[in-house]
Amino acid sequence: MNPSEKLQELFLKFPGIGPKQAARFVYFLMREKNNYKQELAKNIEALKDSANICEKCLRVFSKNINQKESKLCEICANKMRDERSLMIVVKELDIDAIEKTKFYSGKYFVLGNLLPFLTEKPSEVINIRELVNLIHTSLQKEEKIEEIIFALPATDEGENTINYLRKTLSQIVGIEKVKISTLARGLSSGLDIEYVDKNTFKEAFEHRG
Amino acid sequence: MNPSEKLQELFLKFPGIGPKQAARFVYFLMREKNNYKQELAKNIEALKDSANICEKCLRVFSKNINQKESKLCEICANKMRDERSLMIVVKELDIDAIEKTKFYSGKYFVLGNLLPFLTEKPSEVINIRELVNLIHTSLQKEEKIEEIIFALPATDEGENTINYLRKTLSQIVGIEKVKISTLARGLSSGLDIEYVDKNTFKEAFEHRG
Amino acid sequence: MNPSEKLQELFLKFPGIGPKQAARFVYFLMREKNNYKQELAKNIEALKDSANICEKCLRVFSKNINQKESKLCEICANKMRDERSLMIVVKELDIDAIEKTKFYSGKYFVLGNLLPFLTEKPSEVINIRELVNLIHTSLQKEEKIEEIIFALPATDEGENTINYLRKTLSQIVGIEKVKISTLARGLSSGLDIEYVDKNTFKEAFEHRG
Amino acid sequence: MNPSEKLQELFLKFPGIGPKQAARFVYFLMREKNNYKQELAKNIEALKDSANICEKCLRVFSKNINQKESKLCEICANKMRDERSLMIVVKELDIDAIEKTKFYSGKYFVLGNLLPFLTEKPSEVINIRELVNLIHTSLQKEEKIEEIIFALPATDEGENTINYLRKTLSQIVGIEKVKISTLARGLSSGLDIEYVDKNTFKEAFEHRG
Repeated sequence: MNPSEKLQELFLKFPGIGPKQAARFVYFLMREKNNYKQELAKNIEALKDSANICEKCLRVFSKNINQKESKLCEICANKMRDERSLMIVVKELDIDAIEKTKFYSGKYFVLGNLLPFLTEKPSEVINIRELVNLIHTSLQKEEKIEEIIFALPATDEGENTINYLRKTLSQIVGIEKVKISTLARGLSSGLDIEYVDKNTFKEAFEHRG
Repeated sequence: MNPSEKLQELFLKFPGIGPKQAARFVYFLMREKNNYKQELAKNIEALKDSANICEKCLRVFSKNINQKESKLCEICANKMRDERSLMIVVKELDIDAIEKTKFYSGKYFVLGNLLPFLTEKPSEVINIRELVNLIHTSLQKEEKIEEIIFALPATDEGENTINYLRKTLSQIVGIEKVKISTLARGLSSGLDIEYVDKNTFKEAFEHRG
Repeated sequence: MNPSEKLQELFLKFPGIGPKQAARFVYFLMREKNNYKQELAKNIEALKDSANICEKCLRVFSKNINQKESKLCEICANKMRDERSLMIVVKELDIDAIEKTKFYSGKYFVLGNLLPFLTEKPSEVINIRELVNLIHTSLQKEEKIEEIIFALPATDEGENTINYLRKTLSQIVGIEKVKISTLARGLSSGLDIEYVDKNTFKEAFEHRG
Repeated sequence: MNPSEKLQELFLKFPGIGPKQAARFVYFLMREKNNYKQELAKNIEALKDSANICEKCLRVFSKNINQKESKLCEICANKMRDERSLMIVVKELDIDAIEKTKFYSGKYFVLGNLLPFLTEKPSEVINIRELVNLIHTSLQKEEKIEEIIFALPATDEGENTINYLRKTLSQIVGIEKVKISTLARGLSSGLDIEYVDKNTFKEAFEHRG
């Protein structure tokens, strides 16, 4: 296989990319300037050393050159972020979306997945052990966790995951010490009442204000 | 024009129907049994007498044969519905969606439209006069309105309409007497956190629980 | 059931219409002027007498008032149309699309359906008997059919139907007397070469010119 | 900027990729094994030397290691391909689609673009000079070009390009020596007659068979 055939195969592993799009990428690269290809290759290469998984929140992050030794992502290392609040998300793109809103100043934890119904060993699907450890460690510090907020998708699997986490965490951390909450359900931007479903209306009605 | 050409023209006025779909309807009718056509024509004809606009909530409704004299829709005429709660919606389909959830047992009012920004004469766009009258009348009764709930779409025009109504109604009815609320914003069913917008996150975060 | 409930049920039978759209139609009608409802009902009613199936081509058509006795559709009754050419289509909308192009001046025949693979009794699915009769009758007239053209969709079922018709008709009418042809396959308007499939390219290449 | 930020920026230049998808690619790479990243970087790097533009057909191609000196793509270098037939396409993906059908065994030429209406200097938009040169050179060889086939999209810009090329080439090469043809228009796979447009029907009808 020559480089272009090999590349087409590699691009097929990219999320959401099929054979046609992979071919399009290869032709695009072949026609692009060598400078661009050089930059692209160099930065993918650099990712090998710079990509890291944060010891605290488990999200992947890219170390800056001056942070060679860092084992914490920028948010976890940031002393200005509120240690008392921990928001549980599924993946990094969720953190990006929330950070963009600028309404949250606490910490995050990346769960990795949602929990399908009837999962026998949850700890093989989601990062529950690491979450429990993080909470235990925090409770022994001066600035303790005071609230855990679930920012999971408003789907059946999201509900299932929240139920499991609520049960597991309240047994472990004791609900008297740490408040556990979930992002409110309600009308998302753009929703017309004509299309409201039972669950969304129920929550939007109960929390009207 | 023969009946089929005339019908095609008439179907073009149906909401969301273009020329191709209108033609499809006509061919469908031409091939259907005469019984079906008879039934359809008869019931459209019957709508002339039976369709009515409810004097209280302004929604269109279809009178049953035994309700010939009724000037109120089924919900407004229903003594079991809670008079103390009034939900403001844009159109009948919104009421249908909310009724299907079975979480609301109060009354409704149909606004007719949303208020575009910079509307000079709101009373020509939305049924504001009728709403004010309805509230005034209710306040003189024994079972008074205690809460007005806005169930309007989570859009900019929806916000604009809510702002106008809050201001207008609080001047007129006095906020000490009647509570004014809006369906909560938050995560609608199916929403992934990755796609959450600023406004939705803000509300979902503030009303977490 | 009152007229509006009954109507919603009847609209559900319209092609491509689900419960939400059916409800929308009913609310639209309830709010429309009585004149419009009257016109609509009157013309649906009129369709009972005016809708007819053409004795020759089997398409449904709407008789004009001055054609009360007509058993032939406008095209079949039109002496200016070329009797020597017969185009086989599935349904009336196909005729409409072809007539709009103004490139065809012959006659049509409506097959009613396509033939799924492995159909045991084709004559129960498509109007094959009526087609054979039409051709036999024509061959005894002075202005005989000289060409039969298949204008069927470019799909597997379309191919299957064409194969069946070619075989059946050539046995019956004798290919020496009547030419049998099919609309050419090739690049449809808007098709980019990048998306061309095997069959389309083969035909477009072989008939290049 | 760290490597992940830089990469996100670089992926934004990929065809059809927006900010969200670019971020998704970066997170995907960060989580992938170093082996995969290494392979990807290596092959993008390798493309710098291996990517080449074919001297004859102008398509980009990737040289194999044992073809270091090659200035011709695989198809142009292949003696088994028929030199007498030249198919004009817009881009490499068109060649891929046609090659997959296995119905064509001649050569290709990549035009680079379509010609928008009213283009003042066509030679700055499409590779017309190179095409004319290629034809001239071929006409002096033993195995001459005998046919030029336009495989351009069935769009207005495609038509415009074909018109320009037909005029220009027939002046230059002399139509008596070289046949000029275009892929046939007609029904593409999947097209229902109900949606046929004027141009497609005209061609499908004229080339029926």
